[in-house]
Amino acid sequence: MAEAGVGMDAEREEGGERDLEEPLLKRSPSLTTSHLAMVGSKVSRMESLDYEIIENDLFQHDWRSRSRVEVLQYVFLKWTLAFLVGLLTGAIASLINLAVENIAGAKMIAVTRLVNQQRYLAGVAYLTGINLALTAIAAVLCVGIAPTAAGPGIPEIKAYLNGVDTPNMYGASTLFVKIVGSIGAVAAGLDLGKEGPLVHIGTCIAALLGQGGGGAAGGRRRWRWLRYIDNDRDRRDLITLGASSGVCAAFRAPVGGVLFALEEVATCTAVVVVVLRGFTELCDSGSCGLFGRGGLILFDVGDVQVTYHAADLLPVAAIGVIGGLLGSLYNFLLHKVLRFYSLINEKGRAAKLILSLSVSIFTSLCVFSLPFLGRCTPCDAGLPAGVCPTTSRTGKFKQFNCAAGYYNDLASLLQSTNDDAVRHIFSATAAPAEYSPAALLVFFALYCVLGLFTFGIAVPSGLFLPIILMGSGYGRLLGLAMKPYTQLDQGLYAVLGAAALMAGSMRMTVSLCVIFLELTNNLLLLPITMIVLLIAKTVGDVFNPSIYEIILELKGLPFLEPNPEPWMRNLTVGELAAAKPTVVSLSGVERVGRLLEVLNSTTHNGFPVVDHRPKAVVAELHGLVLRSHIIAVLRKRWFLGERRRTEEWEARERFTSEDLAERGRSVGDLEITEEEKEMFVDLHPFTNMTPHTVVETMSVAKAVVLFREIGLRHLLIVPKNQGPGVAPLVGILTRQDLRAHNILGAFPHISNRKARRNRDKASS
Amino acid sequence: MAEAGVGMDAEREEGGERDLEEPLLKRSPSLTTSHLAMVGSKVSRMESLDYEIIENDLFQHDWRSRSRVEVLQYVFLKWTLAFLVGLLTGAIASLINLAVENIAGAKMIAVTRLVNQQRYLAGVAYLTGINLALTAIAAVLCVGIAPTAAGPGIPEIKAYLNGVDTPNMYGASTLFVKIVGSIGAVAAGLDLGKEGPLVHIGTCIAALLGQGGGGAAGGRRRWRWLRYIDNDRDRRDLITLGASSGVCAAFRAPVGGVLFALEEVATCTAVVVVVLRGFTELCDSGSCGLFGRGGLILFDVGDVQVTYHAADLLPVAAIGVIGGLLGSLYNFLLHKVLRFYSLINEKGRAAKLILSLSVSIFTSLCVFSLPFLGRCTPCDAGLPAGVCPTTSRTGKFKQFNCAAGYYNDLASLLQSTNDDAVRHIFSATAAPAEYSPAALLVFFALYCVLGLFTFGIAVPSGLFLPIILMGSGYGRLLGLAMKPYTQLDQGLYAVLGAAALMAGSMRMTVSLCVIFLELTNNLLLLPITMIVLLIAKTVGDVFNPSIYEIILELKGLPFLEPNPEPWMRNLTVGELAAAKPTVVSLSGVERVGRLLEVLNSTTHNGFPVVDHRPKAVVAELHGLVLRSHIIAVLRKRWFLGERRRTEEWEARERFTSEDLAERGRSVGDLEITEEEKEMFVDLHPFTNMTPHTVVETMSVAKAVVLFREIGLRHLLIVPKNQGPGVAPLVGILTRQDLRAHNILGAFPHISNRKARRNRDKASS
Repeated sequence: MAEAGVGMDAEREEGGERDLEEPLLKRSPSLTTSHLAMVGSKVSRMESLDYEIIENDLFQHDWRSRSRVEVLQYVFLKWTLAFLVGLLTGAIASLINLAVENIAGAKMIAVTRLVNQQRYLAGVAYLTGINLALTAIAAVLCVGIAPTAAGPGIPEIKAYLNGVDTPNMYGASTLFVKIVGSIGAVAAGLDLGKEGPLVHIGTCIAALLGQGGGGAAGGRRRWRWLRYIDNDRDRRDLITLGASSGVCAAFRAPVGGVLFALEEVATCTAVVVVVLRGFTELCDSGSCGLFGRGGLILFDVGDVQVTYHAADLLPVAAIGVIGGLLGSLYNFLLHKVLRFYSLINEKGRAAKLILSLSVSIFTSLCVFSLPFLGRCTPCDAGLPAGVCPTTSRTGKFKQFNCAAGYYNDLASLLQSTNDDAVRHIFSATAAPAEYSPAALLVFFALYCVLGLFTFGIAVPSGLFLPIILMGSGYGRLLGLAMKPYTQLDQGLYAVLGAAALMAGSMRMTVSLCVIFLELTNNLLLLPITMIVLLIAKTVGDVFNPSIYEIILELKGLPFLEPNPEPWMRNLTVGELAAAKPTVVSLSGVERVGRLLEVLNSTTHNGFPVVDHRPKAVVAELHGLVLRSHIIAVLRKRWFLGERRRTEEWEARERFTSEDLAERGRSVGDLEITEEEKEMFVDLHPFTNMTPHTVVETMSVAKAVVLFREIGLRHLLIVPKNQGPGVAPLVGILTRQDLRAHNILGAFPHISNRKARRNRDKASS
Repeated sequence: MAEAGVGMDAEREEGGERDLEEPLLKRSPSLTTSHLAMVGSKVSRMESLDYEIIENDLFQHDWRSRSRVEVLQYVFLKWTLAFLVGLLTGAIASLINLAVENIAGAKMIAVTRLVNQQRYLAGVAYLTGINLALTAIAAVLCVGIAPTAAGPGIPEIKAYLNGVDTPNMYGASTLFVKIVGSIGAVAAGLDLGKEGPLVHIGTCIAALLGQGGGGAAGGRRRWRWLRYIDNDRDRRDLITLGASSGVCAAFRAPVGGVLFALEEVATCTAVVVVVLRGFTELCDSGSCGLFGRGGLILFDVGDVQVTYHAADLLPVAAIGVIGGLLGSLYNFLLHKVLRFYSLINEKGRAAKLILSLSVSIFTSLCVFSLPFLGRCTPCDAGLPAGVCPTTSRTGKFKQFNCAAGYYNDLASLLQSTNDDAVRHIFSATAAPAEYSPAALLVFFALYCVLGLFTFGIAVPSGLFLPIILMGSGYGRLLGLAMKPYTQLDQGLYAVLGAAALMAGSMRMTVSLCVIFLELTNNLLLLPITMIVLLIAKTVGDVFNPSIYEIILELKGLPFLEPNPEPWMRNLTVGELAAAKPTVVSLSGVERVGRLLEVLNSTTHNGFPVVDHRPKAVVAELHGLVLRSHIIAVLRKRWFLGERRRTEEWEARERFTSEDLAERGRSVGDLEITEEEKEMFVDLHPFTNMTPHTVVETMSVAKAVVLFREIGLRHLLIVPKNQGPGVAPLVGILTRQDLRAHNILGAFPHISNRKARRNRDKASS
């Protein structure tokens, strides 16, 4: 993943310079912003979403004419979509689980058979070969068909919900690749989870339903009744629906899923859980193939003894602190690894494929060979013959290379599916230690290494499971160490360790808490889980940002933080706007030729519309017109012979709000004749007459709060002292301009505390 | 509770008319807003909170000088406060529970003894008398000492979090009265809960800790290290902390409590739960007096059989629909009852007392006498002698007036504490029906009546428990009716009925869901609970708003809805501002006498500061200055001999941000001499130079979104076409002006659809 914004400085914001105002802006350090970022593993153009209420003649008319029936239709539509999204997400999640468990199961049976015959070389070859094939399927699909399906998808979704348009993320091909790729990658035994991919799958389903079948990147097939979902706000709600359905499906955690999003998505998640439960019951009866339970993640530690005393708070705090330290260390190292991988990925598709396959080979070899270091432990007498050593596929005590009546503890840890491994590690210990300290150490070390090197490859992957595996490993090790001093159950240590590492890396607390609650089905764990999460998060926050923020930064996605940086109060929006190129504005009634020129030569998405009255001394700002609306007018070819204002009804009878709601149209495919270029377009009916404005002396911090809270795309800066000879507009700021990263690029000393103190002293 | 805003039209917004701009505003229908509302049972002045970042010279300087150490101190302070709030709330909640259970227990023992001796008259007299005494304590305290402690407190807290300053809600006397009053009212067997009061108690604790001991209404004792909590935003965070601790304490639901608020409060709730668990364990050992478990609400239905099939979805949906219908009916009737009570309350304190005592007598008589209608049911042979009829105090099968070996089912329902009643009704039925349909019917009818008439009396009360009681009643009745057709457990019907009625009345879904989850400790109930809640909410929404919105409206608290009304798009802020009296503005350097005149004759809290430059044609808007800042300057007596601008350092050396952060000071106690009145004050250093502005053509809907999202107190309206001869400011809008209710008062036909259509037809 290349660092967009530095290496790929392709397009800058310069354009045609025919402005009608006096240039008031001095050329200061210039604000360079890149519009490119990494979506999945694909470099794409970034644009912001726009939640501002557009107030022009056309829209006002449309709103007023929406009848009560239409409003009810809209509400009914939303509920139906929510239900369908939940249903489909639950169904697909169940199918993925079944497929993975069946494929992995068949694979393990064959390998076990070879091992039992002591044909070890054949075994390792078989395992490696099958895993390689599965990985190849996933990687080829990702690299070839849908590069946006690589990785978890969660950073891009977070960015979308933050207001960044992430193109090509939610199409049908992405969905297909994500599903098949996930199955392949997980069944191949790679150290990655399907939770992140499930969230992405949920959003794809939601987006596709909302589009009525057409892709988000285009496609005109839209069911008539979907015309209500034609604005960014509704689309965002739909994506949110999908994301929480995905979380719910991944963890069987409806409330956790809801916490991921808004209250209206409760329908979705309730449906998902019902569907999943249905499948679970079905599979309990054994009709689901090899793995009886269908492999739904359910780390049922209901039998864990949860009695804790005041003295236990110390080890619990220790778990939290270590989780925080390890979590931030993981973030740091993963950052380095991802940057290294981005160098490799730049070399082309073949390089990406080879990387993925190498990781697969490495994983298979480790998983097969390391257990030879394992200790053959005699089975506990109390356990019946079929349980230890296990003859079933999900069993805990694998024989591997040991004699009858013995089990290999390292093989038991490594040679199950990842879900089973977690289940085993979380299990309560009624009997004496089942895993030797050495086995746990090898397990922990291996998954640390795999956890670092698996995530960035070009297959759908998730972060949750690797972190849970690492965390439970260190948790259990810590439990062994603390054994003489505490009565806490060993399995509980593993659970807390996993929770602590997740908080230490991802820095989420409430959602995680609820997810763990619903995972473990044990309410009594809640208080100490919360304490552990909080401690881990706090410790981790001291060192570096959360892993998702790091990934967002690497991908160059312009995520706007909820709280402005403190140094943003030292800079005014006027100074910031002065660092940008001059604003390109349009006349209220503009020549078609000029419109085309402006659209082709700039990448701006909003243009101020300025009127010059005959008697007025200064131009008057009418409002802001969006690029997409200009393109819509040009496509309809509503051209005027002479430069005149039109009546309100003229626009209304030619355009509906549907016409203006399309996104993503380009101007390139328009064919305008030379004659037409001399005609005029009246922009007034399409201009947003009440754009949000701030005075130029306002601090950037205050402007960022406004921008973020409302969800703006453009913020207009007006001068403080208006009057004759003063231009009505100082500049326009967009999301990219307000990012800390970019501002520091233009004003590098602004965050320097020493420089500020000197400046203060100088001015007092 | 009087309907403030109509009957109490005391103060209007007219004031001194010496404005320096030409009056541009025509006198249209005028926007009348009342600043009075009912807090608790006390009529108070309402003011808004202000979350806008004030940018004047003084504040900018202060922010920049905050060192890293001070920032760390601030963070540490917040965490410590969070911990303390959680600790104290948990402790107080436990104490309340213990007190209630012990008092009620002793009472019931005495009454049971009398009943066993068949001294019925003595029994009813004793019961009624004790209850009367307990109610009297609660009512006298409420009426006499802290009227803001009456009722639940949740509407006022919601209003506070919405941005309305609710004075006198969080003081020490309110806290004391709320605790003692709650104990008294609940122990007196009244049909009200302690959940609402616990939320209020939590906020009081938080506010008091944040104030360092001084009351919110005044008090200068402030610990030095609390100087960081000196703005509205931090105070709001503190109140939020307290509220979620209260929710957590009430329901033993840490996640539910967190959902009530923000993520940062997780510390609080975790601590609360640990404290509560500690007490539970302590009490389990029997050292807590009469009621062994300490009476913490825990409706443990872990043993309820939760198998449901597709066929069960129909009765589940029915529960939801009936819940929605009953819930909205309850809202409607409670509204009427509260209005009736407000008429009574207007007659004075004695009337309030008598009302409370009457309700108490009625409740006691019903609870004692109705069981005589109960059926004496023979005890099931399988139950041991001590269980049925019960000899313990929490037992399920009360003998009352029956012979040995028999129990009175109606007495079992009515004559326990409310918490026990719910526990019994939620219990699973392994045995045949324990409660006859007749008993359930009487139970349901009684609690419907009590639920309507108890809530509005002058004691701390809550809505949760009455609604749970009603809901479980109808749920269980429905379960009996559906018995031939379904296999769902009877106890489960009661739980779902309670959930449905709560959603039908309060219209909350996610928080309720989590609370119920944590109450019942049964994760498997989650999906059908969610479905029931959603259906009930949707059905209820068809008829009327939620009960809290109705109460907010009755109290006149100016709650600003998150979404603007559709008709708000048809009105511009310019038109709205024109309906207000002319803006009162101040000069940049103003005479002291004029300042006093303006402060005394208006109730405005913000004044535009306007400069008249010698050569400029039009006045220039410098910014907005707050009343509290003007008063701070006057108190410091920083008066200038002549009309001049001051240097930045002059203000800085006289004032710190602490001086400017005080609230609630009045100007009346200032003593300014005649000489001083002729001196001048330079307002420039204290003026917020970047107030949020909108153009006059913006719709009210768009302005409301801005107002609400940022948390503004004042919104300045600027003209569209600035220039010579045009005043720089059209008007200022405040929270009251943007309320649907008030706008409709000034523009009554704006929401009339027919009128709009006619207007549209006329203009096209």
